[in-house]
Amino acid sequence: MTTEAAGAYEQRRALAAAALAAHKLDSVLITHLPNIRYLTGFTGSNAALLLTETSADLFTDPRYTIQAAQQVSCRVRIARGPLLERLVIRVAKLRIRRLGFESTHLRYDQHALLAERLPAALKFRPCARFIENFRMVKSEAEIDLIRKSVITNSAALERALASFEPGMRETAFAAEIDYRSRQLDAEAPAFETIVASGARAALPHARPAPVAMAQPGVVLVDMGALQAGYCSDMTRMFHLGKVPPRVASAYQATLDAQLAAIAAVRAGVTAGDVDRAARKVLKSAGLAAHFVHSTGHGLGLEIHEAPRVGAGDRTVLQAGMALTVEPGVYFEGEFGIRIEDTVVVTTAGCEILTPTSKDLRVLP
Amino acid sequence: MTTEAAGAYEQRRALAAAALAAHKLDSVLITHLPNIRYLTGFTGSNAALLLTETSADLFTDPRYTIQAAQQVSCRVRIARGPLLERLVIRVAKLRIRRLGFESTHLRYDQHALLAERLPAALKFRPCARFIENFRMVKSEAEIDLIRKSVITNSAALERALASFEPGMRETAFAAEIDYRSRQLDAEAPAFETIVASGARAALPHARPAPVAMAQPGVVLVDMGALQAGYCSDMTRMFHLGKVPPRVASAYQATLDAQLAAIAAVRAGVTAGDVDRAARKVLKSAGLAAHFVHSTGHGLGLEIHEAPRVGAGDRTVLQAGMALTVEPGVYFEGEFGIRIEDTVVVTTAGCEILTPTSKDLRVLP
Repeated sequence: MTTEAAGAYEQRRALAAAALAAHKLDSVLITHLPNIRYLTGFTGSNAALLLTETSADLFTDPRYTIQAAQQVSCRVRIARGPLLERLVIRVAKLRIRRLGFESTHLRYDQHALLAERLPAALKFRPCARFIENFRMVKSEAEIDLIRKSVITNSAALERALASFEPGMRETAFAAEIDYRSRQLDAEAPAFETIVASGARAALPHARPAPVAMAQPGVVLVDMGALQAGYCSDMTRMFHLGKVPPRVASAYQATLDAQLAAIAAVRAGVTAGDVDRAARKVLKSAGLAAHFVHSTGHGLGLEIHEAPRVGAGDRTVLQAGMALTVEPGVYFEGEFGIRIEDTVVVTTAGCEILTPTSKDLRVLP
Repeated sequence: MTTEAAGAYEQRRALAAAALAAHKLDSVLITHLPNIRYLTGFTGSNAALLLTETSADLFTDPRYTIQAAQQVSCRVRIARGPLLERLVIRVAKLRIRRLGFESTHLRYDQHALLAERLPAALKFRPCARFIENFRMVKSEAEIDLIRKSVITNSAALERALASFEPGMRETAFAAEIDYRSRQLDAEAPAFETIVASGARAALPHARPAPVAMAQPGVVLVDMGALQAGYCSDMTRMFHLGKVPPRVASAYQATLDAQLAAIAAVRAGVTAGDVDRAARKVLKSAGLAAHFVHSTGHGLGLEIHEAPRVGAGDRTVLQAGMALTVEPGVYFEGEFGIRIEDTVVVTTAGCEILTPTSKDLRVLP
């Protein structure tokens, strides 16, 4: 079994199966790979899962015969042709009547094939975020994996900083970060590592460029590890040379906003409440207009999961949700600031997983 | 402009627009990002392109206002809400009647939204591989970019080999490869680098594991660089310690098959002919049953593009197609062999881009 005992996957499938009736379904077709991994532990790149109230069938291809047998405790069916064609046969045998599908993942052509081949009497119904909703609240085992990923990520940053050199290019520093992370057993970056210096840090979705990080100026580093399938996410700021007062005050305001948002996190409040706490601090600092994105997002098997921690989001936080808290302010043509931790919601508040200092560190 | 002059993108859009009538369309909605990049040069992560016989509109969000203005020569429309809702308004204004969509990319929920919001009189038609078919034959500028990516990839392997140590783990060697590639200006691996040793090399889709590469035994390395948006792909074999006769003969047969397949490549033959050339050699060596995958695939902006170089594939090769040629043989529980180059089809034959030696190199 990959990350949890077979029992954990069976429990997840049982919970999903028990929820079918509330959706007026007797079965659901899962095609989104992170959802399949969540329900079975299978990590292959080609799979479909058919879940009914009493059965689970994982379909994959012959490349994964051995791997599926090792990872998966439910029935595995190896298809030599297209998986969905094999699945149609199984649906007919199981006498399924109301089959849900993942409407935010299934492609048009897949839907068209199924709509044509499935039994005419079967009701084939869109069903959005069915498994994603279960994934929002993490188990203890999942939180341990996220914690491990966070620790790796923070350690990778310190190791990369040890190899920092004046005049280094953004791309070179990003490569150092990813390399150190892999040396610490990450499988890959959880997303494309961002190293953005000077005015480039004002672009909220900057990619590292082959340009030297110039002094004086900020360096924004947004990085995450993918380890044992789970993601971490952290943003830290550095400054090359003496920190100008304008940067120092924007940094302090952003840090205050981040701490206020973290202080607002606890089971029972809404995701929107957390966003509002950050926004309020930046508003009183006169920087509201420079905070152009949401305060954070859920993460786990994917780097972006529910809930969105954004303005007006009504999702009620529950203990065990893993979130990022990452307010930022951006000044076009000048600089940008963002500070981000990964946290886990608890009944009393939250646990900040990220151990890295939030001081604005000055680099040579 | 990103990789080619604005003129190249305009020419591509003009060719696509001219092909609309043959599909009984007056316009097409492009949502697959590599196709959008191909037609506009835009590299952002959120975009849709509406192409008519006389116009092109790129829709993206405010994060990409500056970037789109720098990269794109057609009209850019910044949408503050969902792109497809903004696009619906434009479709109505343009009096479009027959709009195609990418049926192998558009998601069910996106299609449902459009089907509901688009003018009732409009015919909204599935259209598979419309832009992918244009992408099969590469321009000189694209071939130069693929060549650059191939050179980086081969250089990264040599640098990684210089850091090879006895007892190294597969994951550590994969990390070295990716690091060296990034130092040579690759943006990322073109796919997850495979380092598979001993019996693990018998899994055609092995991922690197945190296990020491054991002596004696094979090491299979399958790696690609993504550079300036274009992919390379190469597989090379190494042996730790003395090569057993059984491995040596399987290696020679695979190499013979790979050379025969390369010799079969030229404009005018089918992709299936190339596959057959490799299969024939392995059959006469008694290894046909161990060659369990296709001989290769197209590559370019994506690591897997048309054509598939597989049994019975009737695509006629044209000068300028970029392909991998990668026969392999796999012995479960023992070892596996695969040898792969990236080549470009010419009228007389092909150009092998990959400069790396195909000797079975022995490592300490």
